[in-house]
Amino acid sequence: MSKTVPVGVSARHIHLTQEHVEALFGPGYQLTEFKPLSQPGQFAANETVAVIGSKGKFDKVRILGPARPASQVEISRTDAFAIGVKAPVRESGSIEGTPGLTLKGPAGEVELEKGVIVAARHIHFHTSDAEKWGIADKQLLKVRLGGDRGLVLENVIARVSDNFALDMHIDTDEANAAGANNGDTAEIVD
Amino acid sequence: MSKTVPVGVSARHIHLTQEHVEALFGPGYQLTEFKPLSQPGQFAANETVAVIGSKGKFDKVRILGPARPASQVEISRTDAFAIGVKAPVRESGSIEGTPGLTLKGPAGEVELEKGVIVAARHIHFHTSDAEKWGIADKQLLKVRLGGDRGLVLENVIARVSDNFALDMHIDTDEANAAGANNGDTAEIVD
Repeated sequence: MSKTVPVGVSARHIHLTQEHVEALFGPGYQLTEFKPLSQPGQFAANETVAVIGSKGKFDKVRILGPARPASQVEISRTDAFAIGVKAPVRESGSIEGTPGLTLKGPAGEVELEKGVIVAARHIHFHTSDAEKWGIADKQLLKVRLGGDRGLVLENVIARVSDNFALDMHIDTDEANAAGANNGDTAEIVD
Repeated sequence: MSKTVPVGVSARHIHLTQEHVEALFGPGYQLTEFKPLSQPGQFAANETVAVIGSKGKFDKVRILGPARPASQVEISRTDAFAIGVKAPVRESGSIEGTPGLTLKGPAGEVELEKGVIVAARHIHFHTSDAEKWGIADKQLLKVRLGGDRGLVLENVIARVSDNFALDMHIDTDEANAAGANNGDTAEIVD
């Protein structure tokens, strides 16, 4: 049975606490939805901010909503070198010991003390998909992306929940190394 | 027998004809050596120029010497999106039908009509290395890079010559997708 999954390419983006939303956009401000994402309830917000590192910055980095318990900036390793932030590869939410940087919004700045990561590649499985394919939460998978720049990614983390929709998340470095685009299909090979 | 090769990560760079060297730096100008590269006779030059696309530019892009019969700009797919140039994945020297862009040096500008590529990953083999491992020129190989972001690159092109030194060339997207650095070791697995 072929185990194929849709590919979602994550560009650099930010998750914010409500406190940081208000520090950047003003008291009482609420993020507004630009478009829904593949995972239920998650959305790309209309709001963007500047991300400022020691060697450079990116303007207009997209915020994803809704607000979360901890702020987190997800960038590619290419981005990390470009702005001078030593971001480690981490799973989302695992931000202890990670570096910070400065966020600049229309109403103010936030100095993040931590939370800048290169997101570890992963696949969201609805529980029913995982059961069908015999895949366990946190299992490390090998996943092939085809084409001229075909490659097999190792250590792709399985994340299984009733709240997830089937989708593989890779960053722009991984997508570009593979010549892959949003909406392509990948195959779990091991 | 384990077939291990050193990894060289190619950042964006430029090869120029002598005519273009002079258009950018002045009549009679000769490129000067900053440091030698892994391939015999090749060098990183002290000279840099700006590379200007439809959506953005990169300042201080390194020129590699010596001068060549055709000018060529090698960028990553990340770079290509960033500056708005639809660069295809090509082998070095295969530039028919590729897009151009503008180069700006201290003495003038050059409008390249073609020559912007994303370099196809490849391994330089000295003839003796290739014979020892039973690898033919132009053979497509699978090559594994280890670590937390381990992956297996497919379609790695073997290039065999008495003038080459053993070295695998990948671009920054490929290196960053693999968490790899210049001087790491990769293994030919098929």
